[in-house]
Amino acid sequence: MSDAGGSDHVEVTAGVESGVGADAVVDLIGALAYGQLTAFFHLSRDAERAPTLTARAELARLAVAEFSRYEVLRRRLDAMQVAPEAAMEPFVAALDAFHERTAPSDYAEGLVKAYVGEGIGADFYREISVFLGADVHALVSDLVSDDGQAEFVVSQVRSAIEADPRLAGRLALYGRRMVGEALSQAQRVAADRDALTSLLLGGSPTADLSELVKMFGRLTEAHSRRMSRLGLSA
Amino acid sequence: MSDAGGSDHVEVTAGVESGVGADAVVDLIGALAYGQLTAFFHLSRDAERAPTLTARAELARLAVAEFSRYEVLRRRLDAMQVAPEAAMEPFVAALDAFHERTAPSDYAEGLVKAYVGEGIGADFYREISVFLGADVHALVSDLVSDDGQAEFVVSQVRSAIEADPRLAGRLALYGRRMVGEALSQAQRVAADRDALTSLLLGGSPTADLSELVKMFGRLTEAHSRRMSRLGLSA
Repeated sequence: MSDAGGSDHVEVTAGVESGVGADAVVDLIGALAYGQLTAFFHLSRDAERAPTLTARAELARLAVAEFSRYEVLRRRLDAMQVAPEAAMEPFVAALDAFHERTAPSDYAEGLVKAYVGEGIGADFYREISVFLGADVHALVSDLVSDDGQAEFVVSQVRSAIEADPRLAGRLALYGRRMVGEALSQAQRVAADRDALTSLLLGGSPTADLSELVKMFGRLTEAHSRRMSRLGLSA
Repeated sequence: MSDAGGSDHVEVTAGVESGVGADAVVDLIGALAYGQLTAFFHLSRDAERAPTLTARAELARLAVAEFSRYEVLRRRLDAMQVAPEAAMEPFVAALDAFHERTAPSDYAEGLVKAYVGEGIGADFYREISVFLGADVHALVSDLVSDDGQAEFVVSQVRSAIEADPRLAGRLALYGRRMVGEALSQAQRVAADRDALTSLLLGGSPTADLSELVKMFGRLTEAHSRRMSRLGLSA
């Protein structure tokens, strides 16, 4: 939080594979890897509630895409000579708690979670990766960019709401609950992981706090756009 | 079951995309497709019981391979202008019953199921595909050939038995129960699906029955080999 912090920040962007920056990179990749692995399991399970074989297979395909992203991240950790398990471990409790507290009560909530939850996560990791150098930012951006498969989810939610308009209120509430849980788990992680947090808050505190406020603004905006694409109020 | 049946059989091998042969091809691909799709879901769920993140990810990878095989089969059905859902539907009840009755009670049983259950299925579909022409046989053989990923499962089972030798008896019993259930569900399907059954029993009844007996011999032998690779008696 001093000038020393500021020069660390430059260091990080230049050569992320050593020093404070390397810890933060491992943290980010570890968190993202466990996020994808556990999302694979949760989405596979939620997919089984789909009313048709076609829908079940479409959601399974989204889950499989999450596993593929996990594989990319695991290979990256291997290349950095970091054991994937060790990199993921610090984030298991927070991510498991997130999933436990946002367990969908039916198929429609599972769809909202697949679309909105995955979206918040993707935006968040992409924002953080900016602080970790062009290389990591490119890795994360490529990985989490929406490849259009989510269109299936959007159309399923919209037609569920058309069939039963009362659903919209419950799903909107569920979406808000999901954001709340995501934020509270992110805070829990931030309190624990110095490398990531000092990166976000490094340099001049005023300047970076205003960056952070802007970042949350962007995350909230993107979330609202996704909710309205589903036909829901954010 | 007459000479007409015999010439049908030749017809089938020559041009499988029309007539009785086409029905049997759709049946085989439909059964195999649903088999892979549902195996994906069951294995994903069983994987969550793995004691480490690494093991969980390894089993998830096997599940994902099952989904990839489903995708190949679905594309094949699309190319034949058959709705995947319609092709799979006749086999849902039997395959669901198989999984329900062989639900693993713990992680070790899940491993045995992943290896032995998948193995029996692969052998069975490969044997049937011989009757459906070179093209379908090649598709199925390529698809179900063991790509070595199962080595992880074998080593996990062997070390679980080393740690607790009493496990071997229970797992051997579980393996036998799985074969019994597979046979009884296959009979249920055979009673229902004329196209597949008449193909297997078409031509001279004596000649084909002896073929069938040989086929079951091969299936049983391969099953015993898999069981002993796990360190279990068949």
